[in-house]
Amino acid sequence: MNAEIITIGDEILLGQIVDTNSAWIGQQLNLLNIRTQQITSISDSEQAITEALHAASLRADIIIVTGGLGPTKDDVTKQTISTFFGKPLVRDDKVLAHVKNLFNNLAPRRVLPEINYAQADVVEGCQVLFNDVGTAPGMLLTKNEKMFFFLPGVPFEMKFLITHRVIPILREQRSDQHIEHRHIITVGIGESFLAEKIKDIEESLPDSIKLAYLPKVGMVRLRLTQTAPSPVTIDFYHQQLIERLGTHVVADKDISVEQAIVEAFTKDKLKLAAAESCTGGRIASGITAIAGASAIFDCGIVAYHNRIKMQVLGVKAETLDTVGAVSEETVIEMAQGVKKLAHADYAIATSGIAGPGGGTPDKPVGTVWIAVAGKYETVTRLFHFRNDRSINIERTVANAYSMLWNLYVKEKEK
Amino acid sequence: MNAEIITIGDEILLGQIVDTNSAWIGQQLNLLNIRTQQITSISDSEQAITEALHAASLRADIIIVTGGLGPTKDDVTKQTISTFFGKPLVRDDKVLAHVKNLFNNLAPRRVLPEINYAQADVVEGCQVLFNDVGTAPGMLLTKNEKMFFFLPGVPFEMKFLITHRVIPILREQRSDQHIEHRHIITVGIGESFLAEKIKDIEESLPDSIKLAYLPKVGMVRLRLTQTAPSPVTIDFYHQQLIERLGTHVVADKDISVEQAIVEAFTKDKLKLAAAESCTGGRIASGITAIAGASAIFDCGIVAYHNRIKMQVLGVKAETLDTVGAVSEETVIEMAQGVKKLAHADYAIATSGIAGPGGGTPDKPVGTVWIAVAGKYETVTRLFHFRNDRSINIERTVANAYSMLWNLYVKEKEK
Repeated sequence: MNAEIITIGDEILLGQIVDTNSAWIGQQLNLLNIRTQQITSISDSEQAITEALHAASLRADIIIVTGGLGPTKDDVTKQTISTFFGKPLVRDDKVLAHVKNLFNNLAPRRVLPEINYAQADVVEGCQVLFNDVGTAPGMLLTKNEKMFFFLPGVPFEMKFLITHRVIPILREQRSDQHIEHRHIITVGIGESFLAEKIKDIEESLPDSIKLAYLPKVGMVRLRLTQTAPSPVTIDFYHQQLIERLGTHVVADKDISVEQAIVEAFTKDKLKLAAAESCTGGRIASGITAIAGASAIFDCGIVAYHNRIKMQVLGVKAETLDTVGAVSEETVIEMAQGVKKLAHADYAIATSGIAGPGGGTPDKPVGTVWIAVAGKYETVTRLFHFRNDRSINIERTVANAYSMLWNLYVKEKEK
Repeated sequence: MNAEIITIGDEILLGQIVDTNSAWIGQQLNLLNIRTQQITSISDSEQAITEALHAASLRADIIIVTGGLGPTKDDVTKQTISTFFGKPLVRDDKVLAHVKNLFNNLAPRRVLPEINYAQADVVEGCQVLFNDVGTAPGMLLTKNEKMFFFLPGVPFEMKFLITHRVIPILREQRSDQHIEHRHIITVGIGESFLAEKIKDIEESLPDSIKLAYLPKVGMVRLRLTQTAPSPVTIDFYHQQLIERLGTHVVADKDISVEQAIVEAFTKDKLKLAAAESCTGGRIASGITAIAGASAIFDCGIVAYHNRIKMQVLGVKAETLDTVGAVSEETVIEMAQGVKKLAHADYAIATSGIAGPGGGTPDKPVGTVWIAVAGKYETVTRLFHFRNDRSINIERTVANAYSMLWNLYVKEKEK
């Protein structure tokens, strides 16, 4: 069973928003063993929508369309869907009552603006996918045995409808095709060197098992995919790769590095803290985005100003005066300072010139010092990134996690 | 002149990465008045790539393809491109020398693994788009007067090639078609109420000017698009909308709310600080992601643990004991504490139950208190979000910015 995802809206094509919906939908479909074979983003014009619906129906069994169902006038989607299926729009009383009720419950209480009445219009004969968390209902329509799901583009409304309306329907239709995935998350080794290291294992894989390399900044994710039963199980190869890659392995499943750190530290009852200058809170917010992070994280200090580095973290004035804020000595004092303040077992500190301003001939934009203080020792590294601000921050965070992981593994082996 | 963007790679279809490349490319093309009319994500299979190239060439003049050019075996792209254009792959000496050189300059110095030699292969007759920042070169090929750009998928390599190789070529081809955009960023007013408020202006727009509503959590972006000359300029309507929307307007151009805050505070020589519990550093990292943020931001405290709230921010033990960490009193003391610590003019404080754990009958998941301390007064609000962790954090951040903006505008008018 194949699926295709269509997102409607100029804002994606203009690059004004990033399409995070499709990735999320792709994940959900994958869990049902439904293969997404294309994601298409189009303009909210009648022609583009009609063509995309037609093309998708030639390739896929399930077509999931998001966007173009808001209350304002830039939406032509419903009219186009109505024409595509040859059925008129009709006002759904139950949906209208729900929309009115949503506005009534606002504080302060408001009367439904007339512009929102049309939100209750649906294509005649569709199965209404009732939207408990917003005003735009979803719709399920069928044509030539292909299922078309139409959903609003607002992420949490879309997620609600996929979870509570679409998945239960698809679960029944679910094919019995065999698809299994296994993952390995690695840090501290580049894609090419990783490939050389596991070359013989990769070459020994049966035809039914494929290995993919999914590199991101500072890490590589490996994905094994099995598409048919094989004499040797996917778990055998998964285990072989994990053993070969040793301490580079952060996780044996598809989770983020942050999630892996939170899980490992929770299991080992360890606490992490962060003192951030150039990363400005990205490490703290990355770690605390993980559910359960409060078990391992008590405190993060974003110390942009030198006075804060001294006053809160205990960095010495002499250090800042003699070697400056972007220096090995400063990040060591920052890491040790926040570790003490937070009563933590491990602490990360970052200080650098993220750019575009602030560079000097001695310390150009992209110069970054990272320190990680552990239970027994403090390690430091100097980096020379030469990219833009956001990439410099991203690389600093990725390398900080990699350094933290290495020190954690090393000290654990003691 | 129309463009189409094709991204190759199972990882997008499986939802394992979000396609941020296409949004960025769409922005760059838009600045050249080149309209992106479709973004297509496909699997790295020969059939999918061939079909997508063919379909795109029927719709667009410019086809930009990213992904599928890495060093490892999951990439069939180059072979498929070679077949599509009916030209063999040839090894490019200049590219090979560059790739070898990149590995030589690594510290520790490394010899180029054999697997990377194929990175220097390009389709015969293509224009090589030389990649200074990575091992995979880009290629420009032409067929039936359509231009095909092939670029690696690693974001910063893709960005380098678009900026330094693709844009200079496209600039020459640029059509003279008239397309202009104007934007307004609003906070604190929902899409429907906003639409009612400006209904008469919207209805007075000439056919050549379109208004789009682009809602995000806690904000709505308005976009005026003019596609042909009109007797009244787009700036006239832009100004009318700005005047009508008054203090809801955070910016009159297409920037993030964070950027608007950094610009306004820089201009008015104001400093901002943040004391974050449930947002865990998201406000600090959002503000410091903006270039020049160091002019307005000195200090952010992520105080997950009550001891940190007391020790660093000066929250009273009595407050925490009697009303708890998620309370109006606590966020007031957090905001005033960090404002004093940072010597700031404005300070944001957040405390809440982001979930999924930690909820109680009195304070269920989604209960969030926000305080904003200003020059003259401190304002607070209680929210009851009932979504998942990441959405609760996102909504808290958006509402904190909206509260900050309102207080800033109010105090400025004094």
